[in-house]
Amino acid sequence: MNLPAGFRYSAAYAGIRKDTRDDLALIVSDVAASAAAVFTQNRVQAAPVKVAKAHLAKSQGAVRAVLVNAGNANCATRTGEAVAEACCVALAAELGVPAEQVFPASTGVIGVELDATLITAKLPGLIAALSPDRFTDAARAILTTDTRMKVASAAVEIGGKTVSIAGMTKGSGMIHPNMATTLGFLFTDAVIAPMQLKATLAEAVGRSYNRISVDGDTSTNDTLLLIANGASGVQPMGEDRARFQKALDGVAASLAEQIVRDGEGARKLIRIEVAGAADEHAAVRIGRAIANSPLFKTAIAGSDPNWGRILSAAGNSGVAFDPAQVSIWLQGTEVCREGLAADFSEDELKRRLDEPECAVRFVVGGRGRGEARFLTCDLTEKYIEINASYRT
Amino acid sequence: MNLPAGFRYSAAYAGIRKDTRDDLALIVSDVAASAAAVFTQNRVQAAPVKVAKAHLAKSQGAVRAVLVNAGNANCATRTGEAVAEACCVALAAELGVPAEQVFPASTGVIGVELDATLITAKLPGLIAALSPDRFTDAARAILTTDTRMKVASAAVEIGGKTVSIAGMTKGSGMIHPNMATTLGFLFTDAVIAPMQLKATLAEAVGRSYNRISVDGDTSTNDTLLLIANGASGVQPMGEDRARFQKALDGVAASLAEQIVRDGEGARKLIRIEVAGAADEHAAVRIGRAIANSPLFKTAIAGSDPNWGRILSAAGNSGVAFDPAQVSIWLQGTEVCREGLAADFSEDELKRRLDEPECAVRFVVGGRGRGEARFLTCDLTEKYIEINASYRT
Repeated sequence: MNLPAGFRYSAAYAGIRKDTRDDLALIVSDVAASAAAVFTQNRVQAAPVKVAKAHLAKSQGAVRAVLVNAGNANCATRTGEAVAEACCVALAAELGVPAEQVFPASTGVIGVELDATLITAKLPGLIAALSPDRFTDAARAILTTDTRMKVASAAVEIGGKTVSIAGMTKGSGMIHPNMATTLGFLFTDAVIAPMQLKATLAEAVGRSYNRISVDGDTSTNDTLLLIANGASGVQPMGEDRARFQKALDGVAASLAEQIVRDGEGARKLIRIEVAGAADEHAAVRIGRAIANSPLFKTAIAGSDPNWGRILSAAGNSGVAFDPAQVSIWLQGTEVCREGLAADFSEDELKRRLDEPECAVRFVVGGRGRGEARFLTCDLTEKYIEINASYRT
Repeated sequence: MNLPAGFRYSAAYAGIRKDTRDDLALIVSDVAASAAAVFTQNRVQAAPVKVAKAHLAKSQGAVRAVLVNAGNANCATRTGEAVAEACCVALAAELGVPAEQVFPASTGVIGVELDATLITAKLPGLIAALSPDRFTDAARAILTTDTRMKVASAAVEIGGKTVSIAGMTKGSGMIHPNMATTLGFLFTDAVIAPMQLKATLAEAVGRSYNRISVDGDTSTNDTLLLIANGASGVQPMGEDRARFQKALDGVAASLAEQIVRDGEGARKLIRIEVAGAADEHAAVRIGRAIANSPLFKTAIAGSDPNWGRILSAAGNSGVAFDPAQVSIWLQGTEVCREGLAADFSEDELKRRLDEPECAVRFVVGGRGRGEARFLTCDLTEKYIEINASYRT
């Protein structure tokens, strides 16, 4: 891991979830850092989302600490905003910083009151245990139904100095991002002002978090935060800025892919590539329609090269195209040529669909140059099993 | 069954599907009947859909015979339209009627060439076996993954005479109608002109077939046909017309409900009622968003009164509402009052969610009078099992 300078991490078990895995994470920057965030587009927004937005506005994009709990979404709760605010205030007092520089986030079950004292009681211990080396402890504490930790990092050499980027994320179900998804935290020691950081984050999210789907549901708590504390002393400019953006895009893409790989019940990662659409927007809509089709996703679970379901799903995307010009590839094998069955060995392709990754290429035909990539996973019995008993 | 006068039915096994259940159905009206149909909104449309549209246009809404095969959708096929047309021409010749008065429909796998001779070879036998009593034989022959036959009927007394309505339908997966769904055929011996019949059908479909969802996928072959052969000699007018419409709506609603009850892998029928929305359109959008949420549908499969998922799904509908005014009932028990957890016994409610029907009432709050009902089913492991191996 290329961990950025000037950040410390901590984690603890606060008794919010029933099992005894850590459920509370704290990340502190040595100085007030520049921050930008994107949030869920769900009409129903959790209390910490509202408080985080208010804090960012009040602090004008300055963040000193990030406080995350798993096991309770603090959404649709009577005391929601008061609880989120009380936790921020208590932490700010312990750290000696303004409350609006604390960024709260929660994930877990909806509609259950969150007891602030479970969190505030743990704050002194959390702070005492802060360390630059506990990044992965924090990354583990934010997980819910995830089966594994999701982290990524990168380093960029600029003028003889190193700028580092590190990210952690969670998410396994209720994944259908639009602007943001689930919880994700990106840290860098680059020097970047809050206003520039917004565009930087938007760019990184556009083709990573906004191009994945597990089940088409968007959560009430989705938050993706990027904070830059400037500890490297390096302000990437011009060509270096582009290299920094590319490294950040790579970290975001890796985190997003890890979410899909760990999709609830998923056995296979599905990479969907759409080409030949009128524009990128049309390509994304087609990719999303395929990625969200339960019939397509179950066919892949069964290693069935049933390309008719891909064509049918694309036909439901709302994008106008001529089916007679569509060609489709599965695992590099052409299965549909100009709207009709291509000549391929079904048995051989079935075997190759047993692989842990499935590649779908959908070429709309015509002369459009619109392209897009989208990631999803297969839909298995295990998804049902996990979600039919999540609360129980 | 209240079967309308002047229709005869037949069915046979033509070797289109692998097992030996009948896969070919023929329905013939004694006279050219008035007809109206609605079709899939999928951009990809099967050959029989295109041919049926062309025939209805050419015949100006006159239908003499309906020819349906299961086991092959005749979609994305090289010879698709020629095959559908050839079957219609052959049947028309045998019956001595114009080819455009034959209405074709197909359902089954996409992308596999359909051999016209399998069908044409069976036509003489099918015609010879036509009988007013073989309605259910025809209804069985149009099924695919359905586990049971879906039929409904009604009778209306008008001026001392009886007008009858009977319908048959199929469908179990790939169900997310928009204007039409799957295959459905409604027959009546009322006297109604084609132009009036369109409005009559639109009315019947609007709150039945367009308010159901199994998996959010819309097929390439969806077709719903209403034909009126006038054999009763009764032309419903004024008040009688309203009674006729109500009876027809009832038949359509029954057929649509039977589709959801037989949803692939479904163990529970879910009735969603939305009230207090700004208008009916907003209520329908909320109902549809809930009905299409895999997380909600798996929660119901697991008898989990997880109302947070209902609220979250509604929040993704795109409809603006204030979550703090939302109340939700499950099985008549208030689980969420004004956006917060209501006081209820979770254990007792879990037991009641084991029942074969689940009732969800979602009240948006505010003063809107928009209401809608939507039907869906729970999402179980069995759905995956069925669809991961449909072709194999």
